[in-house]
Amino acid sequence: MSAKLITLTTDFGLRDGYVAAMKGAILSCSPELVLIDVTHEIPPGEIAAAAYVLRQATAFFPAGTLHLVVVDPGVGSERRGVACQCGPQLYVAPDNGVLSAVLESEASLRAHVISRPALWRKGPSPVFHGRDIFGPVAAHLASGGALEDVGEAIDPATLIRTPWPEPHAQGDTWTGAVIYVDHFGNLVTNLALEPGLLLLGSVEIAGRAVALARTYSDVANGELIALRGSSGLLEIACNGGNAAEMLGAEPGHVITFRAQRRS
Amino acid sequence: MSAKLITLTTDFGLRDGYVAAMKGAILSCSPELVLIDVTHEIPPGEIAAAAYVLRQATAFFPAGTLHLVVVDPGVGSERRGVACQCGPQLYVAPDNGVLSAVLESEASLRAHVISRPALWRKGPSPVFHGRDIFGPVAAHLASGGALEDVGEAIDPATLIRTPWPEPHAQGDTWTGAVIYVDHFGNLVTNLALEPGLLLLGSVEIAGRAVALARTYSDVANGELIALRGSSGLLEIACNGGNAAEMLGAEPGHVITFRAQRRS
Amino acid sequence: MSAKLITLTTDFGLRDGYVAAMKGAILSCSPELVLIDVTHEIPPGEIAAAAYVLRQATAFFPAGTLHLVVVDPGVGSERRGVACQCGPQLYVAPDNGVLSAVLESEASLRAHVISRPALWRKGPSPVFHGRDIFGPVAAHLASGGALEDVGEAIDPATLIRTPWPEPHAQGDTWTGAVIYVDHFGNLVTNLALEPGLLLLGSVEIAGRAVALARTYSDVANGELIALRGSSGLLEIACNGGNAAEMLGAEPGHVITFRAQRRS
Repeated sequence: MSAKLITLTTDFGLRDGYVAAMKGAILSCSPELVLIDVTHEIPPGEIAAAAYVLRQATAFFPAGTLHLVVVDPGVGSERRGVACQCGPQLYVAPDNGVLSAVLESEASLRAHVISRPALWRKGPSPVFHGRDIFGPVAAHLASGGALEDVGEAIDPATLIRTPWPEPHAQGDTWTGAVIYVDHFGNLVTNLALEPGLLLLGSVEIAGRAVALARTYSDVANGELIALRGSSGLLEIACNGGNAAEMLGAEPGHVITFRAQRRS
Repeated sequence: MSAKLITLTTDFGLRDGYVAAMKGAILSCSPELVLIDVTHEIPPGEIAAAAYVLRQATAFFPAGTLHLVVVDPGVGSERRGVACQCGPQLYVAPDNGVLSAVLESEASLRAHVISRPALWRKGPSPVFHGRDIFGPVAAHLASGGALEDVGEAIDPATLIRTPWPEPHAQGDTWTGAVIYVDHFGNLVTNLALEPGLLLLGSVEIAGRAVALARTYSDVANGELIALRGSSGLLEIACNGGNAAEMLGAEPGHVITFRAQRRS
Repeated sequence: MSAKLITLTTDFGLRDGYVAAMKGAILSCSPELVLIDVTHEIPPGEIAAAAYVLRQATAFFPAGTLHLVVVDPGVGSERRGVACQCGPQLYVAPDNGVLSAVLESEASLRAHVISRPALWRKGPSPVFHGRDIFGPVAAHLASGGALEDVGEAIDPATLIRTPWPEPHAQGDTWTGAVIYVDHFGNLVTNLALEPGLLLLGSVEIAGRAVALARTYSDVANGELIALRGSSGLLEIACNGGNAAEMLGAEPGHVITFRAQRRS
């Protein structure tokens, strides 16, 4: 039988024992689970960054993988914890928008609130639900437990969603925005490069016109390039360099371009 | 049967190949072992930080987990290497105080010195006992080997312990100290918030009076809060912010408060 | 049966979802594989650093381990991807020199170009071969697939190698160089301390004469020391300190010393 997988995405950082305590709590429930880190370097409380990173990563895991997400600035407050089945993937997370980008890309969606303490560690800390509530719940679901076990079903339409803004068009002039800056300084934008969209000419950002190409080395070292990133979104990169530093750009920075919908 | 677990705590950092070399050495002994990182970001040689992080993490692992700790500024010197059974957990570490906070919390304790080279890699490097001595010894114990196999029993009272100072009281006025600053800038103190202790009023730190509450979001964004952290110790935090930066506080910083022992 | 291991070495960093996406792609091919990180903190595109780190780490893994290396500034260009059997270890990597230090240390070597798309993800992204090509190919080989399956055999002599320069001698005066600075600030040099080589006196670096000893604590705290590092290369370190900061040294920095070949 296949391994049963849990991935972990948090803002805990790696230098304290928090991630390990959560892993220990999970393995104490179900020692046979395999744990894979997505990242623990989400900036503290940055829900939008976590949402984007999940979109980059979770779709590539085997069906039935459980993705545990603990970016939870409202821990211990009235915010809900939720468990969702979204297509072939399972998620356990606070209901604070962190699942926005993975929920939007899936039609089949079931959600349950995490409300039944029987699965939790006894006397859960109000400041560490990852270890005491979400972790054990994730272990239960990843081991084959039913969504019904964690709490009552809720209407998926009530899940908090904070999607990034869509690009908008006036005639064939489009305006988009940077939504994420990655480790390499690549600027990921909100423009999904779908087959039906034809870009005309270059992308304008920070007063620069950046030509579209296929991969980094299509331009000389140190040159800017616009390309279809590995998540299907338009990215501005610099071959052998750091586009974010070169352009002084960060999330929210505007891009403009000309494009037409193909008929 | 359950997976056999080894956790790893070092100051090696993650950018070189040291952690991987140690993992390779372990898996070369016992390929079926499951390895879980606690952290590799202990500041170089900072034994007190490692001791605190272990206390945060190891108790949450299944019984029989082996915790391998290599924060070892005295590597290759006369300092002892030790293997300890402490309650349901096993430890392999240099005898330099790094186990202080996990040993103090357990009554049942057996210790053996690591002295029998038969388990080690041949020709161990005097600068990398983690890979050549501690790793293989940990693999042996985690796979079910006996403590007796690694070397002779020693009196646990001879293990080096460097506990953090206890808070002290004059009447109902107490003085404590910050012992650790975490990734979020939360200031962990040496005050264990036990049921028998009643805090009166607020906690004073850096000229500020900080009110006690239950979780971060009990105060407004940007406000300081004192709370019972997830390890049971009093922490000073900032909702949505970084208390250490706000207060300019670091380990050793004094806190004062009023408290009474409940009768 | 033993676990089937893949190690991962990249310059992706840990804060985005790239490493996880690659792991998901691997586990989607072969869910039973065990994944071990070497590092994801190779500075972007720094092939020489990756080559050194692999040399530190891969030899310690069990025979049959597959080492997946994605430091790939030329992704999507005409550079080849290769799969190599080198002694008991397997490698999948771009053919850009990243394997220089592991190939040079092994005589028995077979290499195949990665050219048969049947193993790849459909529609591979030209900017993420790690996820879409190298990862699935690595999964196939680690699961017992044959090198022949990934593409045609190539002459190992055609693999790109960018070894670090050898130290050179004039009489008994030798000149070497720092090739790597590790997390602790230890300066790793290109001098392999083999039994046949006798160092005479101290090592000169940055105008300082550094005495040779066995381990860090052989000198006082804060003192420099030259020693045989855990990879068999001469290192300049500082007991309890950071030699790179103390000396302002980085890769390329020259060392001189006197030595004789033993007859």
